[in-house]
Amino acid sequence: MQLLKEAILSKGRVKGENILKVDSFLNHQIDTKLLNEIGKEFVARFKDEGITKILTVEASGIAVACFVGQHFDVPVVFAKKTESKNLDDATYESQVYSFTKDRYYQIRVSKRYLTSEDKVLIVDDFLANGHAAMGLIDIVDQAKAGLSGVGIVIEKGFQDGGSLLRDKGIRVDSLVIIKSMKDGQVVFAD
Amino acid sequence: MQLLKEAILSKGRVKGENILKVDSFLNHQIDTKLLNEIGKEFVARFKDEGITKILTVEASGIAVACFVGQHFDVPVVFAKKTESKNLDDATYESQVYSFTKDRYYQIRVSKRYLTSEDKVLIVDDFLANGHAAMGLIDIVDQAKAGLSGVGIVIEKGFQDGGSLLRDKGIRVDSLVIIKSMKDGQVVFAD
Repeated sequence: MQLLKEAILSKGRVKGENILKVDSFLNHQIDTKLLNEIGKEFVARFKDEGITKILTVEASGIAVACFVGQHFDVPVVFAKKTESKNLDDATYESQVYSFTKDRYYQIRVSKRYLTSEDKVLIVDDFLANGHAAMGLIDIVDQAKAGLSGVGIVIEKGFQDGGSLLRDKGIRVDSLVIIKSMKDGQVVFAD
Repeated sequence: MQLLKEAILSKGRVKGENILKVDSFLNHQIDTKLLNEIGKEFVARFKDEGITKILTVEASGIAVACFVGQHFDVPVVFAKKTESKNLDDATYESQVYSFTKDRYYQIRVSKRYLTSEDKVLIVDDFLANGHAAMGLIDIVDQAKAGLSGVGIVIEKGFQDGGSLLRDKGIRVDSLVIIKSMKDGQVVFAD
């Protein structure tokens, strides 16, 4: 996706060889125009799949999911990370390890909002080691819902999440795949 | 806002006298159609204010802010709650007490994304005791940005956040105000 590549090259900031900061447009400040284009792009890629629900995990996945969901005209569900007095008792749960925060956390989705009738598109801002996506796929499986695929805004192709998921036969559609970030230079896979 | 009142009456669930669960359409599952109407409604109310940025706090404010931001055609910024290796060192910070989670937490916004040039509309899903809104207002003040007001989807009129803010001369526009939730019945203020 050309517009996204341009945003990454002009506004992204590389820290070391692993961290790409895109908080000027994707996950702290949100460029609503760009996110709308991202939403349309996922519809173009998954429009024949009969998607009934967009699933993501809080917090930075929510913005992406909202723009994708409105263009599919379906509801969004976001998995919760934190304990809350207000969540239903009946939840699907999975355990996820976060490298960014260096700890395990539980993700949870109320059983009310994901059922065997659903055809789910999982979306997230980043795919790196794939742990968050695996947790969401686990929850889709627990709900016996159908999984159409995983839609990713930025895949770090030099980490193993993408191949881990694709080796399981899961469709992973990433709007851009980054091959390397050596010496502060973002190199795309294509 | 009639559409929102209908959603609350038909899909909201009252727990005790204080908790209104609207996770079927607002803060766990998200009704993208309704959220679009909410976005348009805030534009109708604040369109002459020269808003340059929508500010909220993760996680449940993000969805509301995205739909508001796209209809204003301005960027969204969401304050972060959790420690992250990826956040800038230079941040505005404020301390917020959460009754729902019964603990204090720090909220942070990178200084890059809020400046004295900005005219800010703060939005959130709920207004109860007003602590989250006060934290965000504190951050707007630190940035020396202009504050147009606080846009709330559901105000709990029987808690003191609304009067706390209005007594300070802050414009608070709530799409619905709930007067009471006794015996499981939602009563609106108007």
